[in-house]
Amino acid sequence: MTRVGVVGATGYAGAELVRILSGHPDVELTILTSRQYAEVPFAKVYPSMAGVVDLACKAYSPDQVCDMTDIVFTALPHKVPMEIVPELVRRGKKVVDLSADFRFSDVSKYESFYQPHAAKDLNEKAVYGLCEVYFDQIKDAAVIGNPGCYPTSMLLPLIPLLKKGFLDTRTIIADSKSGVSGAGRSLSLTAHFCEVHESFKAYKVAEHRHSPEMEEVLSREAGTQVNITFVPHLVPMIRGMLTTTYASLARKASAEDIRNCLADFYSGRPFVRLCADNSVPDTLHVRGTNYCDIGFKVDERNNRVVLISAIDNLVKGAAGQAVQNMNIMLGLNETAGLTGVPFPI
Amino acid sequence: MTRVGVVGATGYAGAELVRILSGHPDVELTILTSRQYAEVPFAKVYPSMAGVVDLACKAYSPDQVCDMTDIVFTALPHKVPMEIVPELVRRGKKVVDLSADFRFSDVSKYESFYQPHAAKDLNEKAVYGLCEVYFDQIKDAAVIGNPGCYPTSMLLPLIPLLKKGFLDTRTIIADSKSGVSGAGRSLSLTAHFCEVHESFKAYKVAEHRHSPEMEEVLSREAGTQVNITFVPHLVPMIRGMLTTTYASLARKASAEDIRNCLADFYSGRPFVRLCADNSVPDTLHVRGTNYCDIGFKVDERNNRVVLISAIDNLVKGAAGQAVQNMNIMLGLNETAGLTGVPFPI
Amino acid sequence: MTRVGVVGATGYAGAELVRILSGHPDVELTILTSRQYAEVPFAKVYPSMAGVVDLACKAYSPDQVCDMTDIVFTALPHKVPMEIVPELVRRGKKVVDLSADFRFSDVSKYESFYQPHAAKDLNEKAVYGLCEVYFDQIKDAAVIGNPGCYPTSMLLPLIPLLKKGFLDTRTIIADSKSGVSGAGRSLSLTAHFCEVHESFKAYKVAEHRHSPEMEEVLSREAGTQVNITFVPHLVPMIRGMLTTTYASLARKASAEDIRNCLADFYSGRPFVRLCADNSVPDTLHVRGTNYCDIGFKVDERNNRVVLISAIDNLVKGAAGQAVQNMNIMLGLNETAGLTGVPFPI
Amino acid sequence: MTRVGVVGATGYAGAELVRILSGHPDVELTILTSRQYAEVPFAKVYPSMAGVVDLACKAYSPDQVCDMTDIVFTALPHKVPMEIVPELVRRGKKVVDLSADFRFSDVSKYESFYQPHAAKDLNEKAVYGLCEVYFDQIKDAAVIGNPGCYPTSMLLPLIPLLKKGFLDTRTIIADSKSGVSGAGRSLSLTAHFCEVHESFKAYKVAEHRHSPEMEEVLSREAGTQVNITFVPHLVPMIRGMLTTTYASLARKASAEDIRNCLADFYSGRPFVRLCADNSVPDTLHVRGTNYCDIGFKVDERNNRVVLISAIDNLVKGAAGQAVQNMNIMLGLNETAGLTGVPFPI
Repeated sequence: MTRVGVVGATGYAGAELVRILSGHPDVELTILTSRQYAEVPFAKVYPSMAGVVDLACKAYSPDQVCDMTDIVFTALPHKVPMEIVPELVRRGKKVVDLSADFRFSDVSKYESFYQPHAAKDLNEKAVYGLCEVYFDQIKDAAVIGNPGCYPTSMLLPLIPLLKKGFLDTRTIIADSKSGVSGAGRSLSLTAHFCEVHESFKAYKVAEHRHSPEMEEVLSREAGTQVNITFVPHLVPMIRGMLTTTYASLARKASAEDIRNCLADFYSGRPFVRLCADNSVPDTLHVRGTNYCDIGFKVDERNNRVVLISAIDNLVKGAAGQAVQNMNIMLGLNETAGLTGVPFPI
Repeated sequence: MTRVGVVGATGYAGAELVRILSGHPDVELTILTSRQYAEVPFAKVYPSMAGVVDLACKAYSPDQVCDMTDIVFTALPHKVPMEIVPELVRRGKKVVDLSADFRFSDVSKYESFYQPHAAKDLNEKAVYGLCEVYFDQIKDAAVIGNPGCYPTSMLLPLIPLLKKGFLDTRTIIADSKSGVSGAGRSLSLTAHFCEVHESFKAYKVAEHRHSPEMEEVLSREAGTQVNITFVPHLVPMIRGMLTTTYASLARKASAEDIRNCLADFYSGRPFVRLCADNSVPDTLHVRGTNYCDIGFKVDERNNRVVLISAIDNLVKGAAGQAVQNMNIMLGLNETAGLTGVPFPI
Repeated sequence: MTRVGVVGATGYAGAELVRILSGHPDVELTILTSRQYAEVPFAKVYPSMAGVVDLACKAYSPDQVCDMTDIVFTALPHKVPMEIVPELVRRGKKVVDLSADFRFSDVSKYESFYQPHAAKDLNEKAVYGLCEVYFDQIKDAAVIGNPGCYPTSMLLPLIPLLKKGFLDTRTIIADSKSGVSGAGRSLSLTAHFCEVHESFKAYKVAEHRHSPEMEEVLSREAGTQVNITFVPHLVPMIRGMLTTTYASLARKASAEDIRNCLADFYSGRPFVRLCADNSVPDTLHVRGTNYCDIGFKVDERNNRVVLISAIDNLVKGAAGQAVQNMNIMLGLNETAGLTGVPFPI
Repeated sequence: MTRVGVVGATGYAGAELVRILSGHPDVELTILTSRQYAEVPFAKVYPSMAGVVDLACKAYSPDQVCDMTDIVFTALPHKVPMEIVPELVRRGKKVVDLSADFRFSDVSKYESFYQPHAAKDLNEKAVYGLCEVYFDQIKDAAVIGNPGCYPTSMLLPLIPLLKKGFLDTRTIIADSKSGVSGAGRSLSLTAHFCEVHESFKAYKVAEHRHSPEMEEVLSREAGTQVNITFVPHLVPMIRGMLTTTYASLARKASAEDIRNCLADFYSGRPFVRLCADNSVPDTLHVRGTNYCDIGFKVDERNNRVVLISAIDNLVKGAAGQAVQNMNIMLGLNETAGLTGVPFPI
């Protein structure tokens, strides 16, 4: 059975990896690392896991991780992965990295939004792990740059329409709304209960660094440079992300045209669900799941299309898609470990 | 002292009127009506008011209302006001109506989105009660069509820029997010706690009937027909509305230009606050107040401006603006009754 | 494979049964009934289930249910089950009933708190489905009266101590707090978002009809009549129930004595977790799971013990325990279908 | 006009003091101090106050505070006030201290639960500021030990019954539930949104250091030593505290007896409201107000009474009662500055 480790297991994305991997039928979770909680039982950090996850967290040691795993998930702050992943790969491990470090084809973009890149060679071999779009490349990849939650929610509805030339690429606006878990487990006033429970606000208006990640992928798929306006907002709920994307139509298109385009592209893909006519995505419907629900509306009067997509930011937006990537890399059933029945509420 | 009545006092907007008017220094609240709670003490319907509001609700009787009031607020479902307001006005009462019935200059627009209008003559005399824009007309009005919460939040940041020609009027997109109180007190699954507490979703995508109200005002102020794409969303919080509006710039404009335009227009207006640079509106900051907080960002790369505005949907978006209208109509201090110090959290 | 039906599938307990049974490895979900949603696809009522649950709801027909099932869950309002369950049993079906109809040994108690009982004979054969306590009787039962959520949360920590004579049975006070899903999916102001989101209150103070259910079981286990004071409260969260139980000690007992008593009684029982010293149960830790977490504190100064227990009211407090009962009745692994890894948040 | 200062203005209790004092008709807020935000405008720390509170925070300087004020509120962590308050008093300032430092008559109790007391002489002159009970002493006090939120909510319903001998003083159990603002503005996992939003839990079970504060007052009023069992819990809401108190009756008492006792004691007291029969307190009804709502139930079967009280922990449980104390000390109307009309929701 494939042995799996999670480096950075006690942040929210890491803990969600632990949840999914602990219930995965085809892999064995063998090691968890955490700087902050070294030598602490994982179930003490997350008591919901008592009796289910028996591992204690370890300080990170490359030797130990390499000895105990075949594939490694790195759920760490940006910059740390590019320093440790190269060694893991050199020693034959497959890696799914949840940071931004291996998401960019164009390293200069990464460097202008983050910092100098310390593993450019490896970055060239990394594959952007948007599973529904880059399935074939993922199969053979050694390193996956797992997409961010905002890009995932925004790219999935857009790419099929872009590829078919439906959209005026100069007009794309993405208005995203994220649950608070996206801010992570690190303490901050932004996630302090009393400051957020009856609050709704935007942040990093039109300057969020997820835009370049989105634009690189959109440009590649559109075959032309695509710039977007992207505004993220914070919703007083734990999990969930909804993105409302607006674009002018490049040519006449009916609701049926749009539906067919999306349905064709995602035909047979287990984790994308098209909403029925007259219904719209709701983060409640994807909570705890790896689904991306997509709905849309053609605004004929204004010759625009409105795309709406909902994901769980911690699952399809992070740990779930990471496991989906692992499944593809290992040749497992793509849905393995990701088939828990959704909660009704 | 001016005598005031609230017709439809037990819905959320009505109850908020009762709150504000009970604390108003220059008027006396004399009668509350409620179909559902006739003869029930108001403080039994809203126990927070025990010991503060002593009135019992009455069934609606035009004679009684006319005998006991000088000015009347109607907080009723669309269609009911146009049937009862004409008589009130005929008998010399001033009226602030919180429904859509008297918001449209062009009755045919009202009729195409709502129903046949039963009081067209009176409608011609009604004034759209967006206080910061139509102050002078409001002073002399007998009937006010109090703006909807969505239009209020969206019009206030847009109108100054539109009037100065900054915006390409074909490109306006408004993405709004409302707290659940906007759905009212009537029971529905949409406002059922378990279905909304961890949910974020859009509704009435690009078809909400607030758009025509917005478009009529925008067109009037811009001097040209303006169509918009408007998408409302539901946020799991009680009060608050945030609207993110996107528009392409019609001409080069710096952040300073935008700031100056907004600051000039709202100079001396007590309820519009411009956010400092690098800060953004948050519904938490306006909760329980009549403020509209406005922030913006110029997206130079895309030649767009992003406007963000926050209001309390029940106050500046309903009852607070209604009282502000009353103050203006009666020649009182515009802020009377609306100066409660905001809560820190 | 055992065929299973859920009668009353669209309330919250019914929907949770559908969730658990859809993922159960050893049974097949064959029929769902709903009065309100007859002929509507279940996934239209609960869109999270789209692509996972393909059944449409049916109006209830005893013939159809009997033809298609081996075991039936009835998740219906009190009174309805006692009218339909007898026929199901006569036709050879096993039944787990989630109402109060088959929870009382002493029918007269049921009748004094609910209504005349229409199936007294069958009631005599019914077994109270508190799995950790009545495992042996459940194995052979034809009908299970599945315990209420309040009784489950309160009985599990109390029974071991009562049986060992630690407690003064005249001093038991249970202060319970329930998430809003306990109020069900029926619309009411009590569960209307704006009335509950920033609200905490008690209800049915010392008169809730779960008390007699609790007292019957406690008296049976203590071997003497036990009366309690029980006060339920409503917490602004979706799922979860926490009960704080106070009792005077009948004899000197240390924390270690209490711990040993609880640990012995629940040794080997998969769904009861004792909290470590200095830690306490939290509804967050059992959300979505069939666990009952138990903690306690000996208040030596006052010679009292404080017991605290947390469950998910919809799982261990309803659907989860119902499935656990089914597993025991069918001779399956007691945990089958109930082993989903808990969420970290 | 009396000049007022707030020392420690940027914690939640301090900010709530700023809110109330800014709207107070008879005092002028002249200085705010904050260690963390020295020289930062208060409205930058709490943007809701923009345009309302113009003061900037200052580092604490006794000279400056003494020069600019007649009365001082200290909203600081325990231990700091006993170091700075003596000087303020020596220089002729009246002080309302919101910490525990001046709440205990018996300094040795304070010392056993907190730390050595540095201002024992002054402590002897301090008055416990439970306004409805110690009105006469407060009038002449130089220093007030403002009660904690838990003691306030628990003492108000209990004291009248204790004084009249209704209760068996050996049987008092208080089960309290507090909104998250009680944890303050300091960052901690306990108040981290994702860890609390769907969580309900107890903490410091039967060991909270508010118990000795409660017991000292109860003993004084009962004329005999009273020990209680006290368990606080955390509710996922911002503001509000509900305490459910259980006690055996020392003598036969009907609901009418209890009601009369409470009604007599609080006759004419503006901030205590007795709930009507068959209705119960709800934190929603007191949110943002200085009210304490009290309800009760006589559990005849068990010869117990259940008392339920609701307050806003930041108002009657902290800043509101502090201002009420100031009003009494200054001979103002007791309700001055505290008469804002409650919100319906």
